[in-house]
Amino acid sequence: MANKVSGSEIEALIQLLAKLPGLGPRSARRAALHLIKKKDALLYPLANAAREAAELVGECSTCGNVDTSDPCTICQDPRRDHSTIVVVEDVADLWALERAKAVNSLYHVLGGTLSPLDGIGPEDLNIDKLIDRAHQPGDGEKRLELILAVNATVEGQTTAHYITDRLSGIDVKITRLAHGVPVGGELDYLDEGTLAAAIKSRSDF
Amino acid sequence: MANKVSGSEIEALIQLLAKLPGLGPRSARRAALHLIKKKDALLYPLANAAREAAELVGECSTCGNVDTSDPCTICQDPRRDHSTIVVVEDVADLWALERAKAVNSLYHVLGGTLSPLDGIGPEDLNIDKLIDRAHQPGDGEKRLELILAVNATVEGQTTAHYITDRLSGIDVKITRLAHGVPVGGELDYLDEGTLAAAIKSRSDF
Repeated sequence: MANKVSGSEIEALIQLLAKLPGLGPRSARRAALHLIKKKDALLYPLANAAREAAELVGECSTCGNVDTSDPCTICQDPRRDHSTIVVVEDVADLWALERAKAVNSLYHVLGGTLSPLDGIGPEDLNIDKLIDRAHQPGDGEKRLELILAVNATVEGQTTAHYITDRLSGIDVKITRLAHGVPVGGELDYLDEGTLAAAIKSRSDF
Repeated sequence: MANKVSGSEIEALIQLLAKLPGLGPRSARRAALHLIKKKDALLYPLANAAREAAELVGECSTCGNVDTSDPCTICQDPRRDHSTIVVVEDVADLWALERAKAVNSLYHVLGGTLSPLDGIGPEDLNIDKLIDRAHQPGDGEKRLELILAVNATVEGQTTAHYITDRLSGIDVKITRLAHGVPVGGELDYLDEGTLAAAIKSRSDF
């Protein structure tokens, strides 16, 4: 339809933008129009940035992070604690933890969670490489710690249990994130499970 | 921040995506990650589509529509009624009317509305060209009709009045869109102005 009135190049751009998470057909049209109106400030730079990212960015063969170098900047960073590996489902989770400056450790990106219903088994995730890393000696004398920072969902917890099973017999410390009231959160809006966990893990004031 | 952990190319892509309407910093990160994961299916095609659109798409010198040809496909289309020009604020409105197959006419895109508070005067809009078009003889014998399809906002109506003033003395028919109940709309949710307009413009059943 828009093809007929406005040239297939615009239509192609709209179709691609509509495939982005968070953009539907309507907002993709708005975004395309915005880009076309700001050709020099947005459309050309986006074309260049997309091409550069496509050509330069790849997966880290150690941890599964996305970066322009392999091993990635994080894996190569000597100032990080190499005896702690935070296991996350997705690169987005890694980014979130980095933004929060929550840890100064290494990461391991699983690339998803076990989900038999969706046909996602252990071989589809980046788990074998995690076991390999767990076998390697840690940073000097220090014992390796794996922090399982998976989502607090059924799939996330199933994946955490599977990983723990696979790691049995290997000398690593396995920990998980604390459950509780989100900082700034109001009790009134929290679900029962979170409240129960917060009570159970209460600490001295 | 993300710069430090994931390469400036990814960061550049995120920054640009965050400037799109409908995407904030968080959804821009999600979108960038989605693109990077689907390099061949999305990121390269997006880079190409953005470049092609940037190079080929321009403004129609007649009506202000965006297209790869000038005059645009619509202005060149002999099967359209060249004696009717629908005046819209924005290309998005033109697209909406075309999707609705509401008219089979020509268009004129103003590029905004008069807004003294924002410093937008008649010289900032595509109005002079509209007056020129109104002066030209219509399609054969038929009198030219301008349908003022501006938004039902204060700015839209101010702009419509200004255009009507400028057109006084020129032999054109000027019409505006009907006000009333949206098709599929529930009366309960409509504002008083719309309901009053719908009563006032009622028709025989």
